[in-house]
Amino acid sequence: MSTKVIYPGTFDPITNGHIDIIERASRIYDKVIVSVAENDPKKPMFSVQERVDMVSKAVSNMDRVTVESFKGLLIDYVRSKKVRVVVRGLRMISDFEYEFQMALMNRKIAPDIETIFMMPKANYSYLSSKLIKEAAQLGADISVFVPSFVEKEIKRKMSNIGK
Amino acid sequence: MSTKVIYPGTFDPITNGHIDIIERASRIYDKVIVSVAENDPKKPMFSVQERVDMVSKAVSNMDRVTVESFKGLLIDYVRSKKVRVVVRGLRMISDFEYEFQMALMNRKIAPDIETIFMMPKANYSYLSSKLIKEAAQLGADISVFVPSFVEKEIKRKMSNIGK
Amino acid sequence: MSTKVIYPGTFDPITNGHIDIIERASRIYDKVIVSVAENDPKKPMFSVQERVDMVSKAVSNMDRVTVESFKGLLIDYVRSKKVRVVVRGLRMISDFEYEFQMALMNRKIAPDIETIFMMPKANYSYLSSKLIKEAAQLGADISVFVPSFVEKEIKRKMSNIGK
Amino acid sequence: MSTKVIYPGTFDPITNGHIDIIERASRIYDKVIVSVAENDPKKPMFSVQERVDMVSKAVSNMDRVTVESFKGLLIDYVRSKKVRVVVRGLRMISDFEYEFQMALMNRKIAPDIETIFMMPKANYSYLSSKLIKEAAQLGADISVFVPSFVEKEIKRKMSNIGK
Amino acid sequence: MSTKVIYPGTFDPITNGHIDIIERASRIYDKVIVSVAENDPKKPMFSVQERVDMVSKAVSNMDRVTVESFKGLLIDYVRSKKVRVVVRGLRMISDFEYEFQMALMNRKIAPDIETIFMMPKANYSYLSSKLIKEAAQLGADISVFVPSFVEKEIKRKMSNIGK
Amino acid sequence: MSTKVIYPGTFDPITNGHIDIIERASRIYDKVIVSVAENDPKKPMFSVQERVDMVSKAVSNMDRVTVESFKGLLIDYVRSKKVRVVVRGLRMISDFEYEFQMALMNRKIAPDIETIFMMPKANYSYLSSKLIKEAAQLGADISVFVPSFVEKEIKRKMSNIGK
Repeated sequence: MSTKVIYPGTFDPITNGHIDIIERASRIYDKVIVSVAENDPKKPMFSVQERVDMVSKAVSNMDRVTVESFKGLLIDYVRSKKVRVVVRGLRMISDFEYEFQMALMNRKIAPDIETIFMMPKANYSYLSSKLIKEAAQLGADISVFVPSFVEKEIKRKMSNIGK
Repeated sequence: MSTKVIYPGTFDPITNGHIDIIERASRIYDKVIVSVAENDPKKPMFSVQERVDMVSKAVSNMDRVTVESFKGLLIDYVRSKKVRVVVRGLRMISDFEYEFQMALMNRKIAPDIETIFMMPKANYSYLSSKLIKEAAQLGADISVFVPSFVEKEIKRKMSNIGK
Repeated sequence: MSTKVIYPGTFDPITNGHIDIIERASRIYDKVIVSVAENDPKKPMFSVQERVDMVSKAVSNMDRVTVESFKGLLIDYVRSKKVRVVVRGLRMISDFEYEFQMALMNRKIAPDIETIFMMPKANYSYLSSKLIKEAAQLGADISVFVPSFVEKEIKRKMSNIGK
Repeated sequence: MSTKVIYPGTFDPITNGHIDIIERASRIYDKVIVSVAENDPKKPMFSVQERVDMVSKAVSNMDRVTVESFKGLLIDYVRSKKVRVVVRGLRMISDFEYEFQMALMNRKIAPDIETIFMMPKANYSYLSSKLIKEAAQLGADISVFVPSFVEKEIKRKMSNIGK
Repeated sequence: MSTKVIYPGTFDPITNGHIDIIERASRIYDKVIVSVAENDPKKPMFSVQERVDMVSKAVSNMDRVTVESFKGLLIDYVRSKKVRVVVRGLRMISDFEYEFQMALMNRKIAPDIETIFMMPKANYSYLSSKLIKEAAQLGADISVFVPSFVEKEIKRKMSNIGK
Repeated sequence: MSTKVIYPGTFDPITNGHIDIIERASRIYDKVIVSVAENDPKKPMFSVQERVDMVSKAVSNMDRVTVESFKGLLIDYVRSKKVRVVVRGLRMISDFEYEFQMALMNRKIAPDIETIFMMPKANYSYLSSKLIKEAAQLGADISVFVPSFVEKEIKRKMSNIGK
């Protein structure tokens, strides 16, 4: 039986919370494909290539993990990879509802694909890429929330925007 | 005593979840006016006329149901129709809070008008016009979530946007 | 079309929050039957007759309201009364989930009966018979939460228990 | 890599919601051990043997599923079986919080064991063994919520209690 | 020990709910600094000066309260004022999660600063600056939600926008 | 202005989460009275004296903290101590609702007393005395959740019960 899973997301940028979920998934599944969504209505700060690069760097020490980007419907992509399990992190109640809506819609479209949910470490439960970017823009030290190379990329991106 | 109720919304577009609520309301009230909000801060995909047309088509077999659009404050419109009961669907916790905020504000402005809440079928609880449009834009088969003529309208609208 | 509704509950004892819901329902429905559940797993402080008496006294000035008790399954009772609408009050998120579970189970058993939800006044949203009884047992002045004759009944009951 | 998982619970009695989760798990894992908790503070209606028997009957057609009971701490039992993944179903917000509390406590005690969460079918989201037993005790037809042999067991148990 | 607290927010515009929290805080702390955030991603309707002016007018009768604006990171500003306690109002579950995310991020960056939460009056629990502005734009009478001078400012601002 | 606060609870027994809240409160208030509720409907495992002793030991190194027990209504006790601020910890949504109900009832009875809420450390957010006792009864190592002397007391108590 395949124990390959896909962990999809925007990863704009990857946080210590995402990395924690990837590590946990890689300990219980043979292969974890981290899949960066190219077309995102939320208008990412980073290009899909930049996001893939940051994720790749963050997981470079994890044997069973690979990184890709995908376009279009998650469910179509998952099928094209012959994967049957999608992994999502659940931090809070608001996650819970949105994630369940998505998972139930996906299940209706593709009953053969199952979504499973994993919990990050309790002290990553408050991390969100959005809040981290807002904090960085106001000058906060975000080094406890993201890998140091991600912190540098955010600073670089913000100084470019300022130009 | 009047048993006329108003079921207001954006209906951009109408989903099987909305239709389920309208059917339920029409079984327990003499008259259900489905009222399409013209001025919506959420910038609908469809014009108010298109939305009224789709709702009308969806409820064409329901005797006690009529469809209208309205402008301005819901409460003023409800009063102008001499209706005292507003019906809203409740799917999830996040609905719950927003709906209660709206209903409590409306009650403060117009104590004579009451909001009542109805539950859609459990397997429509995850449906949202927003998620359905996002899924359609990525190429999903949305035929299980909306009537087939609505599916066609969404596709037509999206191909027009692409031009 | 019948506009008779049933508002079921334990009413152990009736609070100002319950009375508010009954008043609201009586303004939009022709007839409201307040139905006191006889067999309650929660072991009420008051007998079913005492609870019916207190509810009756609390609604004595409301023309369209009658009070009854019932045994057994709510759905069977509702059907026996030829009523199709059950009214429930929703105060908080925890209510929401329990009420939805009950309503969805009831709907599965009896698809012809609909549950609708009403909101009490915002400043009754924190009232619960359980908390009021606990507060009274510790000597609190509960006169702002229940009618004065209910306050007296609680005190009488508690002094009897002490004997 | 082991793809054996444990799905623990009280199963007092097993419902269609539990069976749905077991089926889903058995489609994505090689082996699913359904583990019936012997010592439960909630004082089950059925003995551990009766509960194991009903679960066994309910899953008899599922190849990859076995049924056991366990005593003591879940985490110790999971380790003794050399399993690293515990599966839990998530239906509602209240589940969510309790399950997360349990999972985070378990993780602290046993960081090597991971809890993953799966969603039942939307129209099983309201099922609970507790509500089903209460409904049965009031005479409800519960045949849509549990397998027919479970319904019979509940009736038998209740008539014995009445004696 | 310092009993100076900061109550930060966008206050676009100040509502009766905010004023209730400020009054409560001023009764239990020696000094309350209401701090209007200058740089807000939500694009306020009113300039920071207009918002400061409205807050100042609303609290003019409260001895222990002062009003300021601030730029940049809240935590840096709080430290620069030598304050250690930030006050936030909690109305609903959705507040709860967002506020906790913010407070936990702030705590990680600045462990010396504590966030405490206060509850507004129950019948202000549904007030939000956003909903009030939306209602005003549709012609609602908002005089029960904000001080009368704030109502005038909103009307003036909206008529200017219309020009 | 008084900066004395009361932190009431059952403390059956005190956990690392409680201790975290007490420490935080003691850093921002001059005096923290930890008040152990004598009459608790939840039937504590430990006597009020045992609970006071454990709390006292846990806070022995905190200068500004004292420990007491109280009987009867919290609000009456708070007034008798001439304190105006009650501190409560908020961990989860379910806490939130119950705590708000209690705080709003207390406010109605005693408008002069204010309840403020504090957040424990994120990785204590899952701790509950009830779950810890259940885990201990099943043989779990609970040394990461409570001080070591509390762990010993729980074991001693459980072995006595067994006799």
